[in-house]
Amino acid sequence: MSLDYEVYNLGDVKLQRGATLRDCKLAYKTFGTLSPNKDNVIIYPTWYSGQHYDNEWLVGDGRALDPKKYFIIIPNMLGNGLSSSPSNTPEPYNGPRFPQVTACDNVRAQHRLVTEKFGIEHIRLVTGWSMGALQTFHWGALYPGMMDLIAPFCGSAKCSRHNFVFLEGVKAALTADAAWKEGWYTEKPQRGLRAAARVYAGWGFSQAFYRQKLDIEALGYSSLEDFLVAFWEGFFLPKDPNNLLTMLWTWQNGDIGDNELYNGDFEAALGAIKARAYVMPGQTDLYFPPEDSEFEVAHMPNAKFVPVPSVWGHFAGGPGTNPKDVEFIDAKLKELLAS
Amino acid sequence: MSLDYEVYNLGDVKLQRGATLRDCKLAYKTFGTLSPNKDNVIIYPTWYSGQHYDNEWLVGDGRALDPKKYFIIIPNMLGNGLSSSPSNTPEPYNGPRFPQVTACDNVRAQHRLVTEKFGIEHIRLVTGWSMGALQTFHWGALYPGMMDLIAPFCGSAKCSRHNFVFLEGVKAALTADAAWKEGWYTEKPQRGLRAAARVYAGWGFSQAFYRQKLDIEALGYSSLEDFLVAFWEGFFLPKDPNNLLTMLWTWQNGDIGDNELYNGDFEAALGAIKARAYVMPGQTDLYFPPEDSEFEVAHMPNAKFVPVPSVWGHFAGGPGTNPKDVEFIDAKLKELLAS
Repeated sequence: MSLDYEVYNLGDVKLQRGATLRDCKLAYKTFGTLSPNKDNVIIYPTWYSGQHYDNEWLVGDGRALDPKKYFIIIPNMLGNGLSSSPSNTPEPYNGPRFPQVTACDNVRAQHRLVTEKFGIEHIRLVTGWSMGALQTFHWGALYPGMMDLIAPFCGSAKCSRHNFVFLEGVKAALTADAAWKEGWYTEKPQRGLRAAARVYAGWGFSQAFYRQKLDIEALGYSSLEDFLVAFWEGFFLPKDPNNLLTMLWTWQNGDIGDNELYNGDFEAALGAIKARAYVMPGQTDLYFPPEDSEFEVAHMPNAKFVPVPSVWGHFAGGPGTNPKDVEFIDAKLKELLAS
Repeated sequence: MSLDYEVYNLGDVKLQRGATLRDCKLAYKTFGTLSPNKDNVIIYPTWYSGQHYDNEWLVGDGRALDPKKYFIIIPNMLGNGLSSSPSNTPEPYNGPRFPQVTACDNVRAQHRLVTEKFGIEHIRLVTGWSMGALQTFHWGALYPGMMDLIAPFCGSAKCSRHNFVFLEGVKAALTADAAWKEGWYTEKPQRGLRAAARVYAGWGFSQAFYRQKLDIEALGYSSLEDFLVAFWEGFFLPKDPNNLLTMLWTWQNGDIGDNELYNGDFEAALGAIKARAYVMPGQTDLYFPPEDSEFEVAHMPNAKFVPVPSVWGHFAGGPGTNPKDVEFIDAKLKELLAS
């Protein structure tokens, strides 16, 4: 089989919470060519349940992330079904036994890919949407001298308590389905996946988005129910439930300060991010509200608060859903890369 | 058995959506004494899953709703377990066969109680929180000449599309549990009720509430998980699932314009509300955002927009959860009643 992506074998990876992920695989895709002096590197991690395909909307000729100029690496998050995940890991760490993986584990694995596989020592930019932003912040805090720029958008450096609660709702809906069988499902827990999708639907887009009927007027669905079934349920149903729960745990436990460098000191971790940063929350994002980004920016030495003016809620940041927001983010990334 | 409330028998009630609720019962509680000329009446409907007990926090000596001055009637919403509900209606309209009841049906039933039972022709004030606000708006639009004042707080005259979607998530979580058995449950669907509770938890309070750890600092829970279990799951578990789903349907289909008076013309219905109104959204309410109240006020001839300055989200309005918000609402009701 010919894949459109590569896999880097990390061997046995000891995870932050104690387990060892043996024969750990990191799937990634690259765009463009690494320059001879390796100074044109952009890292662009994936988001909750997204795969590298789902990141490609921001990459292209004439875009900030232009493969003619940059060597862009999209590493797939552990648990996303392409990198090591509950769905593709052999026994005994398969399915619901897949270990707890932190964003820190993810970024350390990505750092090995970047340094060991490509011999890259310096990165121009790290950027990402949502959990991609979480990983971006981790890059900034774990390897502060390594990159010039970071641009996390619609995400945070630490899962807020409210965001944690929102995710509890998604998880509870998915796992209320008896077909889930505590993760030992033999067939897809349809009701649970669809319930999780419906829970997510209210959070993903803003009140104003729904008020303006952009599900119909902009996205072309035929009714609100059509949007809930075709967009939301359709989005969740193909995903593996244990993969979703693994990434959800990663999200809920995301915190750039939760490692031996910062010992839980979140503000110290923010303060250690040397990179010039554009922190770009969606102005109407319900689970990454701009207030949390403002706090982060206030504690980062070299960061600018750049909210995305949009009623598209969390989807102001991706995955290419609203052309105007894409233009805004692309323009800001160009501005940052030109600096 | 001695009840602390009364029941008014409405007989056979033909509902808006076609079914007849036979031997329909409206449970209510009154406070204070009806004055000889019946000019001291306040109607104060209940909210989603709440019973008249849960409204009493706003009633008391020295309060705006002072039983020494006013005759206060708290009618229980149909479906809330005290008035006719899936849980207490005899076959064949029991359980999941309980008919669809609109807010309009509710308020018409309440109107019969007020006029037939008490011979009241004029109301001083109608007020209520959340779905109580929905019923308050209905009073204003269905009986425009009947009351001087209305004060809906943390609610709306029509269920917004976003609010509808939020409720879809709650419903999907509850009904994902196989023990729900499409409403024919023989034992409580524990997982579904707990899942619905967790979904609700992120919506009920604001991001700022959780950021400030008010679950711990103000409400005294020992941890976030303790709050989710003791407050939220504890709140949902005693409720009958079919009752919850009946009231949820009422909520989702709430619209003061959806009746033969206004034929779906929401703005005309708003425009018909003659009463002097204080429309009081919670400033950080995630499902009744102030923007929707502003729209309503702009289309009402005699209304004032009075947001409750609070980070308590939807719970800025009740049920007496935050003393400061109670004081604010009480003060505004006094102001309105003095006018």
